[in-house]
Amino acid sequence: VAKRLEKFKTTIFTQMSMLAIKHGAINLGQGFPNFDGPDFVKEAAIQAIKDGKNQYARGYGVPDFNNAIAARFKKDTGLVIDPEKEVTVTSGCTEAIAATMLGLINPGDEVILFAPFYDSYEATLSMAGAEVKCITLRPPDFSVPIDELKSTISKNTRAILINTPHNPTGKMFTREELNTIASLCIENDVLVFTDEVYDKLAFEMDHISMASLPGMYERTVTMNSLGKTFSLTGWKIGWAIAPPHLTWGVRQAHSFLTFATSTPMQWAATVALCAPDSYFEELKRDYMAKKAILVQGLKDVGFKVFPSSGTYFVVVDHTPFGLENDITFCEYLIKEVGVVAIPTSVFYLNPEDGRNLVRFTFCKDEETLRSAVERMKEKL
Amino acid sequence: VAKRLEKFKTTIFTQMSMLAIKHGAINLGQGFPNFDGPDFVKEAAIQAIKDGKNQYARGYGVPDFNNAIAARFKKDTGLVIDPEKEVTVTSGCTEAIAATMLGLINPGDEVILFAPFYDSYEATLSMAGAEVKCITLRPPDFSVPIDELKSTISKNTRAILINTPHNPTGKMFTREELNTIASLCIENDVLVFTDEVYDKLAFEMDHISMASLPGMYERTVTMNSLGKTFSLTGWKIGWAIAPPHLTWGVRQAHSFLTFATSTPMQWAATVALCAPDSYFEELKRDYMAKKAILVQGLKDVGFKVFPSSGTYFVVVDHTPFGLENDITFCEYLIKEVGVVAIPTSVFYLNPEDGRNLVRFTFCKDEETLRSAVERMKEKL
Ligand SMILES: CSCCC(=O)C(=O)O
Ligand SMILES: CSCCC(=O)C(=O)O
Repeated sequence: VAKRLEKFKTTIFTQMSMLAIKHGAINLGQGFPNFDGPDFVKEAAIQAIKDGKNQYARGYGVPDFNNAIAARFKKDTGLVIDPEKEVTVTSGCTEAIAATMLGLINPGDEVILFAPFYDSYEATLSMAGAEVKCITLRPPDFSVPIDELKSTISKNTRAILINTPHNPTGKMFTREELNTIASLCIENDVLVFTDEVYDKLAFEMDHISMASLPGMYERTVTMNSLGKTFSLTGWKIGWAIAPPHLTWGVRQAHSFLTFATSTPMQWAATVALCAPDSYFEELKRDYMAKKAILVQGLKDVGFKVFPSSGTYFVVVDHTPFGLENDITFCEYLIKEVGVVAIPTSVFYLNPEDGRNLVRFTFCKDEETLRSAVERMKEKL
Repeated sequence: VAKRLEKFKTTIFTQMSMLAIKHGAINLGQGFPNFDGPDFVKEAAIQAIKDGKNQYARGYGVPDFNNAIAARFKKDTGLVIDPEKEVTVTSGCTEAIAATMLGLINPGDEVILFAPFYDSYEATLSMAGAEVKCITLRPPDFSVPIDELKSTISKNTRAILINTPHNPTGKMFTREELNTIASLCIENDVLVFTDEVYDKLAFEMDHISMASLPGMYERTVTMNSLGKTFSLTGWKIGWAIAPPHLTWGVRQAHSFLTFATSTPMQWAATVALCAPDSYFEELKRDYMAKKAILVQGLKDVGFKVFPSSGTYFVVVDHTPFGLENDITFCEYLIKEVGVVAIPTSVFYLNPEDGRNLVRFTFCKDEETLRSAVERMKEKL
């Protein structure tokens, strides 16, 4: 294996999902629904396949889909963008992240991450030869330590990566935090890469796109995907929105990472993004009900539960149960209790920071959530 | 844009396909069929979507698909491999190439390419920080200059990239060439990365997989895809086969480039790879008929046509028509004649090497091929 990837392990999501199958455990680990995506989107994919939309798409996206992404972005943020020059369709948000890092970051550039963070951020920065600077968000509220951020920004800082709503904590960056970060970025000529795949799962406050703050669009790459919003995580359709000068870099990397993205799925995704408001409202209502069940259940089991304002994840402190750390706790939970959670230490540069915390997902039907809680009540 | 991608332009395929649309030209440029993939594969995709196979696949592939890839490989090469440890499913062969380079090549490693070459090889090697060494295959037969290869291999050579059947020339590496390269690789401890996406389009001789030569499997990454063999280039399903120690690197890069590949399409691809022999025979027969039409037509038009033994491409010398170089010839061809071909200079480290050559594809229905020939007869 090349040195740039030596320090990384098999992603925790794969490890845990495989253990779930092996032990017949209820999988509240990796973030994929155990229910299906909406029929109108599946029907659109079937129609596209039947209609022979099966050859290479344009590298940066099927024109109709680029248009739909721009229209959705306008609806969500009020910003008017050029779908031909500012939208790149990718194979999931994971590819958008890789293309952004490889397309825009040079060796030696410093990039700031907030820990805990999704593991691909660090790995793709390593591929790009960046120097990762890490600021830890700490419970109970995971708020941004602004002074630490200020002192971490240097003349070599090229970008700050923001993920809001935030995986794994469920934190949403507040308007004040985003405003402060925005000022710092403008002042220091720093880019923002923002992963907003959970933007439609914002429960306690409205989602705010960094790109929508004054002066920020021109220095922001906004990444999103179809998977979470339409319960179709296996379709791998994502995109990056950025001003033309940044889109150029993203597209160049994308051209050589995957070249183009599944054509029939892009046609289906076009239909999806034009869904009526009621679709998004219902999605949110459903997830709030699921969240209520899981959060109450975890409290009843005896966890200290940290508030989750968005995403379909919730983080808890497992220490009441006396196991050494998040890894040993999750092992016990799988083998002795029959439930899978994700240890959070893998989301930190310094694993010690996550030793007390584990993540559960509530993107499962209510019966599954209830059974998982029952198992924990019985056996923990 | 990051320095690693500065020298690369918008891929020629995108440029040319966009010009084709703009000028209403017949597109014999980018390699995608203008006919549809087989119904039994499309039906399998539709069934998978209906059956709710729409959530994240296992990162390195849906188990049944990994099995089908291993079974196909056994049928094709006689080699028995472990689908769990030696197969990685990727978003098209383009991603397999990127994952191989980023997962196995370190900065400063030398990698040998044979020009002309598919543009992503050089770009992904640049991402990996490799030093590209290039050996030019020259018309009329594009045979490997063995002495040049010998003197190009150094103690820093990490890998040789082979693409057979070869895009753009249609050359197939002979058994003698492959044996010689294999000996050199074993002698000098060099890996082989082999792009075999056109393996089922081998017309004049049998395709030979480098991995099947004695002692080579353990040092070879074999890449392939669904697109060309099943006329479904837009589905973006590819894979890499390699011994476990190399698969580890490929998978690590893949995890962070795209994480996983479209689930329903993998189920459909599983069905595809189990197609009866008759499917592959018919595909080959069809393409031989198309090739005969285009090759004869190009000769009648007045080109010097180089023999193509495989792929769905054929390369010609355009100089009888008196235009300055391949780029100006292709421009003239689009604007004045209404036919798109691909200039080959973009496939060389030194563009001068390709100035006389352009590539046509025959992955179009026979009527389209005939119309293109008619246009050229009239207007060239
Ligand atoms: C590759 S898993 C993608 C992110 C996610 O779903 C998770 O964090 O569980
Ligand atoms: C991205 S195009 C892939 C290769 C191909 O089809 C071509 O060479 O035309």
